[in-house]
Amino acid sequence: MKKFKASHPWPLEFKIEANCSKSKARASSLLLPNYICKTPMFMPVATQGIMKSLTTEQLKKLDCHLILANTYHLALNPGKELLDFYQGIHKFMNWDRAMLTDSGGFQMVSLAKLMVVNEEGVSFTSHLDGTEMFLSPEKSIEIQNSIGADIMMQLDDVVSSTTTGPRVEEAMWRSIRWLDRCLKFHFENEQKIHKQNLFPIIQGGLDIRLRKICCEEMIKRDCSGYAIGGLSGGESKDQFWRIVSLCTDLLPKDKPRYCMGVGYAEDLVVCSALGVDMYDCVFPTRTARFGNALTRKGAFDLKKSTFETDTTPI
Amino acid sequence: MKKFKASHPWPLEFKIEANCSKSKARASSLLLPNYICKTPMFMPVATQGIMKSLTTEQLKKLDCHLILANTYHLALNPGKELLDFYQGIHKFMNWDRAMLTDSGGFQMVSLAKLMVVNEEGVSFTSHLDGTEMFLSPEKSIEIQNSIGADIMMQLDDVVSSTTTGPRVEEAMWRSIRWLDRCLKFHFENEQKIHKQNLFPIIQGGLDIRLRKICCEEMIKRDCSGYAIGGLSGGESKDQFWRIVSLCTDLLPKDKPRYCMGVGYAEDLVVCSALGVDMYDCVFPTRTARFGNALTRKGAFDLKKSTFETDTTPI
Repeated sequence: MKKFKASHPWPLEFKIEANCSKSKARASSLLLPNYICKTPMFMPVATQGIMKSLTTEQLKKLDCHLILANTYHLALNPGKELLDFYQGIHKFMNWDRAMLTDSGGFQMVSLAKLMVVNEEGVSFTSHLDGTEMFLSPEKSIEIQNSIGADIMMQLDDVVSSTTTGPRVEEAMWRSIRWLDRCLKFHFENEQKIHKQNLFPIIQGGLDIRLRKICCEEMIKRDCSGYAIGGLSGGESKDQFWRIVSLCTDLLPKDKPRYCMGVGYAEDLVVCSALGVDMYDCVFPTRTARFGNALTRKGAFDLKKSTFETDTTPI
Repeated sequence: MKKFKASHPWPLEFKIEANCSKSKARASSLLLPNYICKTPMFMPVATQGIMKSLTTEQLKKLDCHLILANTYHLALNPGKELLDFYQGIHKFMNWDRAMLTDSGGFQMVSLAKLMVVNEEGVSFTSHLDGTEMFLSPEKSIEIQNSIGADIMMQLDDVVSSTTTGPRVEEAMWRSIRWLDRCLKFHFENEQKIHKQNLFPIIQGGLDIRLRKICCEEMIKRDCSGYAIGGLSGGESKDQFWRIVSLCTDLLPKDKPRYCMGVGYAEDLVVCSALGVDMYDCVFPTRTARFGNALTRKGAFDLKKSTFETDTTPI
């Protein structure tokens, strides 16, 4: 596979509005095909194309600029055919702001009963009905093209952040090769080139050498933004922040940086200081749905009887 | 038990705006402590103090004037103590329009595993945890006073509309005696007299003689509105409408009439022509939640695959 370099301009503009004088933090406007987002930005997760327990109107009132949808779930239901019929998920779910879709790879790893990765792609058993499924870099982009989000993610070879040994390096190189296949497939879709962006995902575990190689290789592909993957999965905070800082040092200053799967308040603050612009996690919305309020004074379990007669604001 | 006649004015004003020249239908303004409602009016059911899948804002946008809450469910959770603390359900559920509460009797009959009625009240087994519970006319009003709805319903002795024989007459007379106990208990609560109305429930099954007696007796109590109960439970449409028409002929023209448990479109139209002003039923909201649309052309099951690619309005 030849290295792919984008020959078309990406439909994304990143304007840095202010830089912090004491840290690597920055505030920016992120112009996407469907909406102008302000960063640093947390992107809540609408797994099945709806935000559980919140209407799209409520999301707008909460000043949410971009929501994330899960490729794996949408591929199963409503499926690619219906998504094509509706020309994407935006109209289907009545959301006229920005969207991002994951590649489906992470859900396979976390939800599938049986998962086998080889160079061609990932084979797995559906968590819904037990049927065999197969996801390749091309197939992931094909589905994401049908979903039509402003930002698509490459299919990567995900390994746990606590994995060590040769498997980490194998997954890193395979993620680079899969990025090229994703880019090639996407750029053959004339209709989508000017409507969707594709972000690479930096892999390499907790190994500084591998992360460096991965950053350098992916930067060569000249994408419009970059994600840091494979973190927030059981490693120490020190290791986590060290890898984030390494990546933000290496990644282009004039492009958005997305740290995947991060949603704890402390991590959002620290990673923003390290120069990250975008985050996603089910943690805040799931926690709220389960009756917990995240406040400046910590988390409150509002279902506790001590709050029964408490009428003070959160 | 002495017959009770209201010695205080009820907090309800009923202004008929127009009378139909061809039927007994009328349009009116119903001034309640919390809101001015327009009738004929359908009252959706918020069983546990929330309307399932709809926010109070959405209910207002749908021009909903009054919602119904279930005394039985609210007595179990949040319970009388918390309702008293919050001075009623209105603030608790963020609803500043009108509310009506049932007496809890119907839920006991329909949900309880074991139910025994005697002159004192109704004993039953909770559907939640199997504990023994007891509901008397006084207890029902005590809870409804705590809930604080604009309109409370008397505890009645409910029998199925297809029941015949002496049990129907027994239930009718007992409902009259229980009405007196409800009124007496309510009028001893100085704080609530000017904030809540209490509606009698006409019983008597499909027996014209019994319905007449019940109407006459309950009209003597001089309440601010009247409900027609014990219908819409398996009898023929002809029998149903005949009893409704008899009651609306007998009930005062200048007071609102509420036909309980009615929610089919056809019944709403016919009963309105017969002079009914208020209705409640879980049918429309439950049907919508299950994916069915009720339209002028009939009901559509929107989950059917034939509607997958149908983008025309309902």
